[in-house]
Parts: sequence; structure tokens; C-alpha cells
Amino acid sequence: MKYFNDLADLNSDEILGLLELANSLDRHPEPKALNGKVLALLFFNPSLRTLTSFQAAMTRLGGGTFVVSPEMSIHGLETKMGIVMDGNAAEHIREAVPVIASYADAIGIRAFAEKKDLETDLQDVNYNNLIDLIDKPFINMESAINHPCQNLADWKTLDDFKIPAKNGKFVLSWAYHPNALPLAVPASTLHMASMRGMNVTVLRPEGFELPAKVMKKAKNAAVLSGGTITETSDRYEAMQDADVIYAKSWISARHYNDKQMESEARENLVDWRVKDSWFDNALPSCRFMHCLPVRRGVVVDDSVLDGLKSIVIHQARNRMLAQMAVLYQIMK
Amino acid sequence: MKYFNDLADLNSDEILGLLELANSLDRHPEPKALNGKVLALLFFNPSLRTLTSFQAAMTRLGGGTFVVSPEMSIHGLETKMGIVMDGNAAEHIREAVPVIASYADAIGIRAFAEKKDLETDLQDVNYNNLIDLIDKPFINMESAINHPCQNLADWKTLDDFKIPAKNGKFVLSWAYHPNALPLAVPASTLHMASMRGMNVTVLRPEGFELPAKVMKKAKNAAVLSGGTITETSDRYEAMQDADVIYAKSWISARHYNDKQMESEARENLVDWRVKDSWFDNALPSCRFMHCLPVRRGVVVDDSVLDGLKSIVIHQARNRMLAQMAVLYQIMK
Amino acid sequence: MKYFNDLADLNSDEILGLLELANSLDRHPEPKALNGKVLALLFFNPSLRTLTSFQAAMTRLGGGTFVVSPEMSIHGLETKMGIVMDGNAAEHIREAVPVIASYADAIGIRAFAEKKDLETDLQDVNYNNLIDLIDKPFINMESAINHPCQNLADWKTLDDFKIPAKNGKFVLSWAYHPNALPLAVPASTLHMASMRGMNVTVLRPEGFELPAKVMKKAKNAAVLSGGTITETSDRYEAMQDADVIYAKSWISARHYNDKQMESEARENLVDWRVKDSWFDNALPSCRFMHCLPVRRGVVVDDSVLDGLKSIVIHQARNRMLAQMAVLYQIMK
Repeated sequence: MKYFNDLADLNSDEILGLLELANSLDRHPEPKALNGKVLALLFFNPSLRTLTSFQAAMTRLGGGTFVVSPEMSIHGLETKMGIVMDGNAAEHIREAVPVIASYADAIGIRAFAEKKDLETDLQDVNYNNLIDLIDKPFINMESAINHPCQNLADWKTLDDFKIPAKNGKFVLSWAYHPNALPLAVPASTLHMASMRGMNVTVLRPEGFELPAKVMKKAKNAAVLSGGTITETSDRYEAMQDADVIYAKSWISARHYNDKQMESEARENLVDWRVKDSWFDNALPSCRFMHCLPVRRGVVVDDSVLDGLKSIVIHQARNRMLAQMAVLYQIMK
Repeated sequence: MKYFNDLADLNSDEILGLLELANSLDRHPEPKALNGKVLALLFFNPSLRTLTSFQAAMTRLGGGTFVVSPEMSIHGLETKMGIVMDGNAAEHIREAVPVIASYADAIGIRAFAEKKDLETDLQDVNYNNLIDLIDKPFINMESAINHPCQNLADWKTLDDFKIPAKNGKFVLSWAYHPNALPLAVPASTLHMASMRGMNVTVLRPEGFELPAKVMKKAKNAAVLSGGTITETSDRYEAMQDADVIYAKSWISARHYNDKQMESEARENLVDWRVKDSWFDNALPSCRFMHCLPVRRGVVVDDSVLDGLKSIVIHQARNRMLAQMAVLYQIMK
Repeated sequence: MKYFNDLADLNSDEILGLLELANSLDRHPEPKALNGKVLALLFFNPSLRTLTSFQAAMTRLGGGTFVVSPEMSIHGLETKMGIVMDGNAAEHIREAVPVIASYADAIGIRAFAEKKDLETDLQDVNYNNLIDLIDKPFINMESAINHPCQNLADWKTLDDFKIPAKNGKFVLSWAYHPNALPLAVPASTLHMASMRGMNVTVLRPEGFELPAKVMKKAKNAAVLSGGTITETSDRYEAMQDADVIYAKSWISARHYNDKQMESEARENLVDWRVKDSWFDNALPSCRFMHCLPVRRGVVVDDSVLDGLKSIVIHQARNRMLAQMAVLYQIMK
């Protein structure tokens, strides 16, 4: 394995192999597996779970990490090509990224969506520009449109709680949030659940449809896996017999480059907050998932998040285990 | 050992066992003892010694650490319960703390006193709220009222310099400082010296008495150990035949929630700066201790701090060794 | 080896030994060599390459690091001696530095030039004041006038690309930069190339001569090694038959303590940007080196930096390898 960029790059057997490895490393620690190995963690955006779970993962396998963010270089890193650097930035990513990679056996990169141009983000232009600069194994730590570490951890979580793959109903629900959040998690989560062979319902208000390109990729995965994908804005219909609801807020693709319009589209949707009543017609065993961080009382009620249905802490712990499997495959 | 929260949770034999282990690990390194083990370090307040001594301690034992502070989460961590999170903070400690703990084998937590309500701080309410969120071994890295890592290191320092436990005179002296500093160090240091069986004198100006609850806890320890506790504002009397003076500034508990009054109570006390003359009637072997950081020329004169009586660097190094013993007991 | 402070402290055989060790550790990893060993990294100035290459180096050798910067102590570290600390800083380097060193097996220190008084910086006064506070092995991570880790990496780079030591022509060229940069890299690079026995040409505009003390030290090294040193402001003459050009901007020593004058001296020199045409009369195999970070389109054209002559990434990777050799020698 030379990179971990998108679950779509792997087939189901390869994913199941990673999950088996994650479980094995959890039960039977291998604290010498990656002795002397170095993981570089390059963050263009903030992180708590991703940073700490990767640091812990490498320690558990006997290796180590170092962390880089643009502010570590004097006045930040320049990313534009062909520029005369007579402004603040004293260093260009064209030097910084290859140098960082040269110190490591693998590099994780986080580069969020700019949320200026939809097509640019769907094509993951900025992230791919960074990847082009390195010749080492790399791991996507969330790009504009992908979050494979989260996806692999979520797949494991569905397995851990014995939520059925075949005929299991997975509701990916939009939720209100004061800010316009990126598409990476909803897009890649939809693809993950589809690839797992689930019956996926995308529940979202009018105006918050996921882009056609995102839907198409997931549908291709569903065709292969025997899963299905439906979309609705009808909460009751969506939650009927659901095995799991995965809540997440995301930006309106209709107003992707118009902050004012996008904000107006969201402001009347504060009622899209996951409440106990949403579960009324779901299966009694229905679970609540969220990738965190989550705003209490805004995205979800405390009673749901603190209740028995919520598996968000287990889900977050699986980030570390899933990543241990990936690191092991890449560096061992 | 499942936690290290307060020296009062241990008996003398257990403490002596930890100190013996600390000495043993200093003389006979065990660089594989904690291979693959992870310590999370959660700081709600700044740190230099505590952070670096824990990082060094884990490396020396073959494990690793990761560090978390609230600013790592977008716009910080919300701590209030039952709140609607429509403000800046995007994440609540109810998710962040259990997740961080789930990546680690043990977690160290620092949460200083708020210095708003004395009883709240004496009961360590905020720290205990954090502890309630985790189900992993934990270490108190300084809470509102405790600093057991410092206390254990200080006990070791007293031993290292052969300062007598039985009949040794320990002067805990208030010193001037421009800011109102927490009670954690003086309160827990008083308890430590009492538990070690020393004759402790609390030397402080009128108005800077330690709270009754703090004195009572220490007196209970003294009863068990055969030590004694006295209080005075008379410097000459206090220093008579002293084996050691431990200087520290602390807030006036009389004006705990009144910054203006508290500040006024301190402003005429700039003369409470440890000088060479303080040692005139102490034992010739009398030592000077301070937990650091210390303001030169304010808390203590350079001539004392740089002189032969000062053992503050040795004391600070013992932080690492004491913590190695605690980590070994908890994680090995 | 008890410190690594200046290539001038070593003889050629010792340097060749370090370079052989660096190559050996690159080919034959020793991930257990420094198990349980701790390197403290104390930065008074920002860092990207130095920080991450040292972190990676220690991980590769099985040890660990911790990082300290002044802002980790409350309100920063006081450096003035004999001061009454009633201002912002709550801690003095006289405590902080020995304590940090006491947690480590070796300490790396970065303290850039103040650029106020030339003689102070040439004598490395601030850095030496820090060194005086510790009794552990130490490594210079760039001081006012030295950068031995860079020098050792650069020497290795010259070797790696088979650039001749005897009769090889090394052009150290001033380049334009909007800011007044320190003398550490040009001064110590000049010394390194001279010590390697090369024919060194210092190419710089009038007013940017290196200080006499710097030239003298390098000339002494050249006498021993059989190298030569010349100075010129004539670019054509300098580049004639050059094996390598090492570009770097530096402050004008003529106007060291006059920012206005210094700035004026630089402002008409924007043409001192390394371009393809500079290489017209150099050897066809001529290489381009720079210690990074570098401002594209200001210090050097993209076509040079991205072209086949540029070896700056290889050079930066050698930082890690050179430092691994130093760490191994000091701590093993």
C-alpha cells in the first residue's frame, strides 16, 4: 500500500483486510512494528482528533511523528505557483512539502476545501497540488472532498455494533450549523456506506442536495456492493426502520460561492437538530453517529448525544485503530 | 495504581515505594518499560516544566505522549453543561475529554483554580468534572487545590538532601508576587511536609492565612506522621533553626472573590522577598526551595537563588523522576 | 563528543568521520541506538527544517525529543541578568535553561543574531550566555554567527554530488532579500567550504563584504586545507568555471546598527537574483545550493530552483542525516 487517499481506491476485500488488521492490533499490540519509522503530519487546517489519534497510533506501533503547520515557517507558506515572493511569506510549498516528506517514511496531509469554487473542491485541486510535490507514501487527513480515515473508522464502527451491511438502513442526515461546513465528510461517508452495501438515505432540506458528481460516485459503489441510495427531505420517511443516523452539516452546493445566499439558505433550518423524536419510527436498535466536533443543542440534543443510541466516542476511538492499520500496511 | 491525584490518597509506605522506584529508574534506566504506551497530556493552562518533564519521562521509559490544549479545537472547548453551543466554541469537553482519553493508556490533566469562589476551588469542582468524563488512569498535573507531582518531587528532594523528616523544620513562606497566585502549591506542599512528619511552620502576613480546610487536612496528616504545624507572621520566629524554607506566593483567601481588595492586601507586602538575612538564625545547612517559575528580585533575591542554599534546579529535575515512578506504576 | 558548536572545533578527520556515520545510518538504520534518550530542543526563534529534522532524527535512532520556546513560559522568558522581574516575564533563563537541560541527555539551542551590535553577534554573546547555563552536551541549532548543522549537511551534499574538494570552485553569492538577514549562514558556510579545501569566491555587492573577523577565520581554515578565498563584486568573474553557487542574502555589516541605512543599501540591489544566465560561464555541471527557506522570484528564479542544477531538497534532507550522526556521537 503506497497511499491512503480515498476508500474508492480500494476494493471491499482490501478494506475488510484493513479492518481485520485494526482489530488485531487492538487485541494484540505490536509496539515494535514501526521502530525508527517517522510519520510527518502536515496540517493546513486545525485538528484535534486527527492529530492526536495519529500521534497515539504511531507511538503504539513503536514509531514517531512530527507535526508541521504553515505558521511554523516565517510568515507562513506560499501556495501560489509562479509568484514573486516579495510579500509576507518567506517559503513556498514547493520547497517545504518535499523537504518535510524527505524526513519521513510517510506523510499525512490535511487541506480543507476553500469553498470558493465547487468544481475546484470536487476535483480536490489544492490537495492534489500538494500530493504532486511528494514521492513518499501519503495519507489523506481530510481534503476538500475526502476523509478516508474517518470513513474507515466509521465502517469499523458499523461492524463493531453489528449494524447490517446487507439491508442495513443508513441515514445520512443534514443538520443545522451556524457555519457553512465542507462536503468532505458527507460526500465520503455516503460513498463509504454505499460501498459497504447498505441502503442509504440522504436526508436533507431542499437546497442542500449533494452535488451530482458526489451522488454518482456513491451510486457506482452501490451498484457494485448491492446497496441502494435514495434522497429525501422527508424526515419521517427517511427514519422509517433506520439502523443508524449519521448527522452532519454541510454547505449548500447551490450557493457555493455566494456566502450571503448560502447563509440565508441555512438560517431558517435551525429545526434540523437531531432530537429524540426523530427516532420514533426508527428501529429500536438505531444508533446515532457523528464525526465530531459537534455543537450540542445546535446539531443534536444533549439527550441524544448522551443517550444509549450515541456511539460517537467509540467512533472517534476507531480513528486511532483504523489509522494504525493503514500505517502498518504502508510502513511495515 | 489507577490514578495519582493527591498524596493524601496514598499512605507513607506507598509514597516511599514510589520514591525508591524513582531513584531506581534514575540509576538503572528502563527504556523498554512502556514500549507502545501512550500518555495524553491535557492542559487547560500553560506549562513548561510539567509538559517537558512528562514528555521526557515517557521517552525515558520507551513510550510516548501527545499534548492537547483547548485552542487545538476550533475556537476552544466549551465546558458549561446543558448549553446551546451557538457561540464560538465548536466542541464540548464532554466529547473531547473522553475521546482524548480513549487514545491513551493514561491521561494527565491540568486545570488551575478559577479564583472566583473559594469553596468551588477547595472542592476542585472543575477538575473533578473533567475526571468524571474519563475511565482511564489519570494524573493530576495541578488542579485548583492539588499538585501531587510537585509534592512527590519535593519529598524526594528533601530526602536527597538528607533534610530530616522527624524533627526537621520546614518553613512554608508566603512571598510577594504582583499577581494573585493559586492555592494549589502551598496547600499541597503543606500537606506533603506534614505527611513526611516534619515540623512545619506556615509563615505568612496577616490576611494570607491558608483556608481552614487546608490547615485541617494537613493537621490530620501531621497527627498520623508525628509532625506538627504552626502558623505565624513573625519571620524571625519562623526561621529559627529552620532546615528548609519553601517560598511561594498565594492569593488572600479573605478576599478570594474581590480582585481589588485582594490586590490592595498584597501591595504593601513587597518586602516579603526572601533575602540572605532571612537565614541569619536558620540552621547553617538550611536550604531554599521553590517550585518555579520564580520572579527574581521580587519573590527572592538573586543572591539566595544563585547561592549554595538554593536547590531549585535539583527540585525541578525531580519532577521528571517522580513522574517516571508514577507512570511506571500506572502503566507497566 | 560533548558538543557540536562550530565546525572549527573539529578537524577534517572528525568531520569525515561524522559524514561516514551519516551515510552509514542512512543505509543501515539503527532504530534502537538511542532508546530512552531525550533531546531537548530550545528555540528562541522560529524553525521548520531544524525542528522537524531533529525530531525525525531522534525517532529514527529510537529516542525522543521535547520542544521549548519562550512563549511556553507565562509571558515569556527573561534574559537580562540582575533584573527585578516585576514586568511581564514570570521566569528567567537562569532557571528555565538548566531545568530543561536537566530533563535531557543533550540540548539543541537556537538563538539568532540580535542585529544590534556587530561585535556582540560576532562573539555570539547571547548564545554563549545560554550555553554557560548548562552542563549537558549541546548542539548549536543556529546562533548569531554559526550554523554547524547546516554546514555539516552542506559538506555532505557537496560530497554526495561529487563536487571536488581540491580545486573545486565554490561561489558563495549574496542575493537580494527584502529583509536584513543574519550572518550565521554565510559566515559559517564560507568557513565550511574553506575547511573542505575548496577555492571559494565570495560574490557580493560593494557594502556587503563579510566582516574581517569572518574572513580571517575562513582564511585560517583555507591555509590548513589548501583552499583559497577571494572576494569580488564581479559576477562574471566569480561564476567562471564554478562547480557550485551557494546563494544567501545577508545584512550589510557596514550599516549593522542602522536599519534605515542598511535598508537603503539593499534597495537598489534587486537585480542580485540568481538567474539562468548566471550559469553561462560556469561549469556545465554547476549546482545551485540554498539553505532554505528561499523567496522565489526574489532570491532566485523559479527556472533555476526547479531546474536540474538545483540540489536544495537533497541538501535539506541531509540536515536530518548529518544531525543523526551528531546525535549518535553525542548520546550513544
